[in-house]
Amino acid sequence: MGIKRMGQQTIRLENPPSIAAGACVVGKKEGQGPLRDWFDYISEDSYFGEQSWEKAESTMLSRCFALACDKAKLPPSDVQYIFSGDLLNQCTGSAFALRDSNIPFFGLYGACSTMAESLSLAAMTIDGGFADIAGAMTCSHFCSAERQFRLPLEYGGQRTPTAQWTVTGAGALILRSEGPGPYVTHVTTGRIVDAGVTDAANMGAAMAPAAYETLKAHFEDTARKPSDYDAIVTGDLGRIGHEILCDLFRNDGVDLGPACTDCGLLIYAQRAQDVHAGGSGCGCAASVLAGHILRQLTEGIWPRVLFAATGALMSPTSSLQGESIPGICHAVALDMNRKG
Amino acid sequence: MGIKRMGQQTIRLENPPSIAAGACVVGKKEGQGPLRDWFDYISEDSYFGEQSWEKAESTMLSRCFALACDKAKLPPSDVQYIFSGDLLNQCTGSAFALRDSNIPFFGLYGACSTMAESLSLAAMTIDGGFADIAGAMTCSHFCSAERQFRLPLEYGGQRTPTAQWTVTGAGALILRSEGPGPYVTHVTTGRIVDAGVTDAANMGAAMAPAAYETLKAHFEDTARKPSDYDAIVTGDLGRIGHEILCDLFRNDGVDLGPACTDCGLLIYAQRAQDVHAGGSGCGCAASVLAGHILRQLTEGIWPRVLFAATGALMSPTSSLQGESIPGICHAVALDMNRKG
Repeated sequence: MGIKRMGQQTIRLENPPSIAAGACVVGKKEGQGPLRDWFDYISEDSYFGEQSWEKAESTMLSRCFALACDKAKLPPSDVQYIFSGDLLNQCTGSAFALRDSNIPFFGLYGACSTMAESLSLAAMTIDGGFADIAGAMTCSHFCSAERQFRLPLEYGGQRTPTAQWTVTGAGALILRSEGPGPYVTHVTTGRIVDAGVTDAANMGAAMAPAAYETLKAHFEDTARKPSDYDAIVTGDLGRIGHEILCDLFRNDGVDLGPACTDCGLLIYAQRAQDVHAGGSGCGCAASVLAGHILRQLTEGIWPRVLFAATGALMSPTSSLQGESIPGICHAVALDMNRKG
Repeated sequence: MGIKRMGQQTIRLENPPSIAAGACVVGKKEGQGPLRDWFDYISEDSYFGEQSWEKAESTMLSRCFALACDKAKLPPSDVQYIFSGDLLNQCTGSAFALRDSNIPFFGLYGACSTMAESLSLAAMTIDGGFADIAGAMTCSHFCSAERQFRLPLEYGGQRTPTAQWTVTGAGALILRSEGPGPYVTHVTTGRIVDAGVTDAANMGAAMAPAAYETLKAHFEDTARKPSDYDAIVTGDLGRIGHEILCDLFRNDGVDLGPACTDCGLLIYAQRAQDVHAGGSGCGCAASVLAGHILRQLTEGIWPRVLFAATGALMSPTSSLQGESIPGICHAVALDMNRKG
C-alpha cells in the first residue's frame, strides 16, 4: 500500500495493463468527418438494422465489442470482466448489448466520462490482480439522446450555438495484463465539480471546471506538466468548454499549448458539418480513443497521451427542477513506455 | 496473478477489507417495519425537507454517507473513493448527494444490485492497493421511483399481486484496509441473465434466474455449499422471486434451507404493511445490509453471510419496446473471520 497512490486523486499502476485492441463503430455523420479513416465500421443506417434507436444503440455497442475481441484475437468468453455504461435511462444501451455476452458485468454511469471511467476500473482490476483480460466500453446515439434529453427529432427543434452534437458511436477496448502497449500507467479519478451552470444546452461550460480540476490534480499528483504529454485529449468539452479550460489554466499561468485538444473538436469538421460547438456523448470520447488516439499512440506520433473524458451528471428532471449541472472528469495516462 | 481468481466469476481477496461502519436512513413506512431498530435514522417526512422527491432522495443519501463517516470515526475527506449509483435517470440521486463531497467518485448503474456492486468494487479497490478507505453506497425512494417507472402517485394506480414496494432508504458502508471486521472475503460478479420475463410488475421473477446463476457460480467457484453460510441474503427478490430461486436450486437437488432469505422479505411486515410481493429498490438491500445484516454479523449471530443483491436492468422505454427484462446479481461473502 501507498506505493500506488500519488497524491489525492491519482494512482500509478504497478504493472501497467496493455491495450490489446480497440474498436469503434459509428454512424454516417461521424463517418463523413475528419477521423473517418480510423473507424472500424461506419453504418449508413442509423437504425443499425433495428426497429428503434435505443435498440440500434445496443446493437452498435454489441458489434463494437465483438470487433474489439476479434482485433485482440480473443474469443469474447476469454474476457473476464466488462465495464460499460451509457446515457440511456437505466443504461439499457449497455445492458441489452451485453446481455448475451455471459461475461461478469459491472454497469457504470459516468455520463460522457464513461470511457475514462470504464478504462480506469478495467485497468485497476487487472493491476489489482483480479483479472488478466478486461473490457472497457461505452456508446451513445444521436437520435436516442435527442429524444431522451431534448425533443423528439420530428419537432425539428432549433439548436443553440453552444449546443453540441451527440455522437452516434461506440468504442471498446480490450485490456490485458501483458502486451506490447500502449499501457495504462496512471489513473486520476475525478471529483464531482458543480460550477453552477444551469444551461443544459451548454454542457461544455458545465464540464470545463471538472476537466480543469482533474487535470490540475493529475499534474500536481504526478509532478508532470502539460508539456510532458504529446497530447492531452479531453472529451467532450467541445469548442466552448475547450476555450474555458484553456482560460482556467491560463489564469494560473499555465499554457496547455497546442497539444491540448478535445474529442468533441476532433470528430467533426465543425463548420462543414454544422455541429455548432462540437461533438458530445459517451460515444464521442470512446470512438475517438479507440480509433484515432490509439493509432497515434501505436504509430509513435503521440507516444504519451493524457486522455481525460468529461461528463455532465444531470438529467432532464434535475434541470427542470432548477438544479445546476454537476460535472466530472476522469483522466487516464496512456504510454508506449511501460514505465510511464 | 491467478491467486485471487477462483473459477469463472469469483475472486478471493488477498487482504480482506474490513467494514468499518455502515449507516442506513429510511422513510416512515420502513421505520414501521420489523427492522426498525437497526435503522440509524427514520424520516417522518418523505420529502426529507426538500421540494421534490428526487431532491429528497439525494438528501437522504447524503445524510446516510455523513452518518457512516461519523460511525466510522472518520472525516469524510479521509474517504479516498466513493462508489455509488441509484435508480433515477442518469443516477442523479448519487450525483447530487455527493457533488459537494470532494471525493473521487465512480458512478455505477446496477439497478437494485448496486449495493453489492459498489461493495465489490470498493473492496477490490482496497485489496488492489489503490486505497485504504473507500465508501460504497446507494439509495432509492418510493415516490421518485413510482413516478419514473410506473405512474404518478396521484393517479392512485392499482398494484398487481406480484408488484414489489420500492423502499425509501439509503445504505452506506465505509471500508478500510485494516480493522476488526466484518471482512469482505469473496466477490462473485454477476453476468447478465435474461430469462425472457416481460412483466415489469413482476421483477422478482425476472431477477431470480440471475440470483440462481450467481449463487451457483459462487458455490462452484469456492467449493462452498449453502450450509457453509449462516445466512444467504438475496435482495430484492421478494416473495415470488425468492420462491423461484428456491425452486431452481431444488431442481438441482440443492436445498437452500431456512438460512436463505431476502432483503425484500425482511424489510416489511408483508401482510400488515400491504406490500404485496415485498420490498425492492436499491435502498432495500442497502439499508438491510447496513443495518440488520451488519448487526447480525458483528453480534456473532450470523458470523458468515453471503449477500447477493439482484437488479433488473430494464427501463420503461425497453419495456414499452417489448423487450424482456435482463437481470443481474452480484454476491459478496462477509465474514467475521478474516481468513474467510
